[in-house]
Amino acid sequence: MRQDGVDALVVAPSADFYYLSGYAAKPTERFTGFVLPAEGRPSLVTPAFELARLGQEFQDAVACRPWNETDDPLRLAAAVLRSDGGARRIGAGNQMWTEFLLGLQARMPDAAWVAAGEIVSSLRMVKDVEELRLLREAQGLAEEALRRLIAAGFEGKTERAVAAALMDARRAVGLDPTGSAGIIGSGPNGASPHHMNSDRIVRRGDAIVIDFGGGHHGYRADITRTLHVGPPSTEFRAVYETVHAANAAAFAATRPGATCESIDQAGRDVITKAGYGEYFIHRLGHGIGLEGHEPPYMIAGNRLALSVDMTFTDEPGIYLPGKFGVRIEDVVRVTDDGAERLTEFPRAITIVE
Amino acid sequence: MRQDGVDALVVAPSADFYYLSGYAAKPTERFTGFVLPAEGRPSLVTPAFELARLGQEFQDAVACRPWNETDDPLRLAAAVLRSDGGARRIGAGNQMWTEFLLGLQARMPDAAWVAAGEIVSSLRMVKDVEELRLLREAQGLAEEALRRLIAAGFEGKTERAVAAALMDARRAVGLDPTGSAGIIGSGPNGASPHHMNSDRIVRRGDAIVIDFGGGHHGYRADITRTLHVGPPSTEFRAVYETVHAANAAAFAATRPGATCESIDQAGRDVITKAGYGEYFIHRLGHGIGLEGHEPPYMIAGNRLALSVDMTFTDEPGIYLPGKFGVRIEDVVRVTDDGAERLTEFPRAITIVE
Repeated sequence: MRQDGVDALVVAPSADFYYLSGYAAKPTERFTGFVLPAEGRPSLVTPAFELARLGQEFQDAVACRPWNETDDPLRLAAAVLRSDGGARRIGAGNQMWTEFLLGLQARMPDAAWVAAGEIVSSLRMVKDVEELRLLREAQGLAEEALRRLIAAGFEGKTERAVAAALMDARRAVGLDPTGSAGIIGSGPNGASPHHMNSDRIVRRGDAIVIDFGGGHHGYRADITRTLHVGPPSTEFRAVYETVHAANAAAFAATRPGATCESIDQAGRDVITKAGYGEYFIHRLGHGIGLEGHEPPYMIAGNRLALSVDMTFTDEPGIYLPGKFGVRIEDVVRVTDDGAERLTEFPRAITIVE
Repeated sequence: MRQDGVDALVVAPSADFYYLSGYAAKPTERFTGFVLPAEGRPSLVTPAFELARLGQEFQDAVACRPWNETDDPLRLAAAVLRSDGGARRIGAGNQMWTEFLLGLQARMPDAAWVAAGEIVSSLRMVKDVEELRLLREAQGLAEEALRRLIAAGFEGKTERAVAAALMDARRAVGLDPTGSAGIIGSGPNGASPHHMNSDRIVRRGDAIVIDFGGGHHGYRADITRTLHVGPPSTEFRAVYETVHAANAAAFAATRPGATCESIDQAGRDVITKAGYGEYFIHRLGHGIGLEGHEPPYMIAGNRLALSVDMTFTDEPGIYLPGKFGVRIEDVVRVTDDGAERLTEFPRAITIVE
């Protein structure tokens, strides 16, 4: 914070908030804010009736500043920011709602407001041993759910029915499916990377892009595999092998010190050389941890250098409109001398029924 | 917007966004913004690869402004705001993330930014026939889930086990449980209005506060009932009947033209006169629609007058630390000459096993 010239952070319920405070509050219309001065004790501005949720240990570590239902919580937060930080330059948590930022700005017209994002993400990007354990377990649960889904078969089912079966499989293995139904992109629908599941029936001859995740003690899984129902065409095989090679090239480029954009470039080069460059329409990957998408982002223009124990997805794709899509997504960890995949599920073409 | 002197709105994925655009985008790190000038055609600033999710009808009605992965979407949004609105005073959607607002402010240093909240909520607060149908159906599904939960019994189960059974019941009746596990506050845990479910085992002699909701085609249910396992004490009966009478008094006070604060006061007076005023530690209720909590709020200081077809919760409570809590929550609709409950579940004391 001192390096960035920030006197205090104010962070509202979000992954940043949970990471900094350990308190799993949700964003609601009632303002809750964690105030972290560059020096000194943090404060929590909280609805008074939520105090009962906070244990003694928390209240010993953090100065709790409760507000009653008819109080002005932003006035209280502004007072805390002024008294604790003498705050003139304030980092606002990235996901705090506009209504709260505008309210704070109105109550502190002399303060300068900057996004707190990079300050907090510089901490969150590098995972500790416990975080890595949870990410690895989460990924293992997702793989087990995918195995169960494949065992149940696809042909003749609608995308929505497959998604419902996937939801059941995620729950059965103990992965919290909250947040997303997952993506089941069959046939031409696979050419939309964020396809919304439809009533299209999966037929023999279809490719299916399956992309989903889930929560495990707060940490996220994320996996994509592209399956093929029955024998694939020559074109599908060519595209698939190109994506597979791009995934491998990005993985091979991963090591401490490599820039995020170089990882994207490594995967993209393979696809461009194969003639499919214009059909790889998204970045190569994103960080993963408490959020399914978080820094660092593997994208052109991001010159951030990778560090040991950063975790991110390696997920190149090729999307041929009207035909099919192929995406292969692993979660990768940066190691001392390279990289390790947290995803063990086979990457070779999987033909299913 | 003209009344409020606002030239344009920019709204990010949220209930406001869905209400205005009909597009169920989710908030992510990739900026998506719906730009609504006071006059003229709305625009959607969207990641290019999401265009495939938007049908032709949408693209005919809304000017889609796609950005590619390495573009600056906020620069694009600023350009749209300037060209379409000549925007000098801009309403920012309440739940847009701080990182986007700060980015827009930096790119449009001469614009004045205000919260779009009241402009959009003035529309959203009054429900149309289709919205009322969905809210009524949602509430009916929640009631059916509660009946199934009660039929399965409570004694000897942990709060977490009851919450898991409630999750199954919500899913079984077709209510989307995404968003919250529900609150199971047994015995003294019921005295925390937003109790986090624990491993406490429900015993004979416990009160249990059960509060949950769920989604139904985008619209939310919300219900609270306080049950008692086995015969209740005299004190519990007295507290329960006070809350029951407060719920009835707030309902009786509801009619077009009554202020939101008068509804809170009507319920609160009953509790205060019975000597429990200091234990009713939250507002009387909140609006409900696309969000579980939305305007109008029934709280002291809110002089907004109710209109026909506004919907809100009537949920007084008394919370006795170390003993128990009681809350009774219905969803209410303002009618031409009074009010109607969308919640049919009995409000009288329910004794369970």
